[in-house]
Amino acid sequence: MHAFDAAIALAPQGEGAWQGHTSPAYANMIGPFGGITAAQALNAVLQHPQRLGEPVSFTVNFAAALSDGSFLALARPARTNRSTQHWVVEFRQGDQAVATATAVTALRRETWSATESPMPDAPRPQDVAPPGHAGRVEWLNRYEMRFIEGGFPPAWNGADEQDSRTRLWVRDKPPRPLDFASLAAIADVFFPRIWRRRAKLTPLGTVSMTVYFHCSQAQLQATGTGYLLGQAQAQAFRDGYFDQTVQLWNEAGELLVTSHQIVYYKE
Amino acid sequence: MHAFDAAIALAPQGEGAWQGHTSPAYANMIGPFGGITAAQALNAVLQHPQRLGEPVSFTVNFAAALSDGSFLALARPARTNRSTQHWVVEFRQGDQAVATATAVTALRRETWSATESPMPDAPRPQDVAPPGHAGRVEWLNRYEMRFIEGGFPPAWNGADEQDSRTRLWVRDKPPRPLDFASLAAIADVFFPRIWRRRAKLTPLGTVSMTVYFHCSQAQLQATGTGYLLGQAQAQAFRDGYFDQTVQLWNEAGELLVTSHQIVYYKE
Repeated sequence: MHAFDAAIALAPQGEGAWQGHTSPAYANMIGPFGGITAAQALNAVLQHPQRLGEPVSFTVNFAAALSDGSFLALARPARTNRSTQHWVVEFRQGDQAVATATAVTALRRETWSATESPMPDAPRPQDVAPPGHAGRVEWLNRYEMRFIEGGFPPAWNGADEQDSRTRLWVRDKPPRPLDFASLAAIADVFFPRIWRRRAKLTPLGTVSMTVYFHCSQAQLQATGTGYLLGQAQAQAFRDGYFDQTVQLWNEAGELLVTSHQIVYYKE
Repeated sequence: MHAFDAAIALAPQGEGAWQGHTSPAYANMIGPFGGITAAQALNAVLQHPQRLGEPVSFTVNFAAALSDGSFLALARPARTNRSTQHWVVEFRQGDQAVATATAVTALRRETWSATESPMPDAPRPQDVAPPGHAGRVEWLNRYEMRFIEGGFPPAWNGADEQDSRTRLWVRDKPPRPLDFASLAAIADVFFPRIWRRRAKLTPLGTVSMTVYFHCSQAQLQATGTGYLLGQAQAQAFRDGYFDQTVQLWNEAGELLVTSHQIVYYKE
């Protein structure tokens, strides 16, 4: 079993309730990698017997660092329409919420479609070197990341880098066929934009992340274990919070995901 | 009393519960303007006696068009930390949810700050003509919009416009001092990107909107009744759903809000 599947596994506890566990394979500095918590929350919706259609929109709020161990996952359909469904999710440890989430799932139909954010020119993944060292935290070892531009600062010297953009090729390590849960996690793989911008290891933590899925299950199957081209950039850093915009394209140049998050930083 | 204040007013029904009403002044084609529903949902958080700090992040999901009349607004703090608080909101009509929302509020402290998305060059608001005709729907008459580029298509002729960008100066009409609730509404004033891109009146509706606040109450007070420069553009239109990214700057060039939404479209 792939480490990702083991990490997002949920044990049913009655309709709309599951027990999940934090995963040492996706450990971050404090608590788990936010992307894996996001994937677990989306998985509670995906596993629900009343689910209608595929995810279109997903927002997860990180209320607290999860403690190592189990958590209770609750998911309920707040509203079911003919072709859309609205979800509310909460993760609890003890009597405290540690994450909240909302999602919209929908039956999608083929329509006029267009990509307005084209994939940037980039060398092929095979022609971009992966970083030569193991990750500083365990979850980094679960992803193959080949930085095209805006990799980790060569020195933590507080240089103002003027912009915070990163472009990379990314996929699960070892490769795993792409699905909605893994896409939600990959939307969170970018190291913090303030580290990129300032070359400074500021303490921080994501407080909220939103993922829009511009893709069908069929497109994900066609993408398979291929690489995604990911791009991330901040628009504003202000009084303890910065944002990050993200795009993920597959190798065929299809924009599968646009995502956004807002991140607390200390100084 | 300003029409906006009347529209977002909530009558307390016990802790964490209020009665609100849809407002004819902000009526859309079907149900109310989404921005006013967003402002009402944020107002439930802002009115809550347990609220800590100012809004940082806010997501509202439009589960159904509200029927004209009253609704029940429920807001609860799912988690309160030392300097952040996580909120879950639900609007109900009868026994059905019509909207859900989550919010993060926080006590913000002054830190190193930077804007990475500078305000685009634009003529002064006074030098841009407002549209000469009344709005097609009532809520449009509650905003002063001066289009700098990407206004309503001159003809609904199905021309593919290549891009969907709009830039405008906007403020409440009549002017009203800016606050978090009115900012949330203004994040939704842009006419649908698919109409801009295709010059075609496709049926549609926003399903989810997220607003990140990069501003303090003090900045909003300083902005007062001034204009905001708003920019909106889609990144992808795919199988019934397109996204929209939004930035709002004040006349001093401060980026107050970044926002995103995903919108259902029929064809």
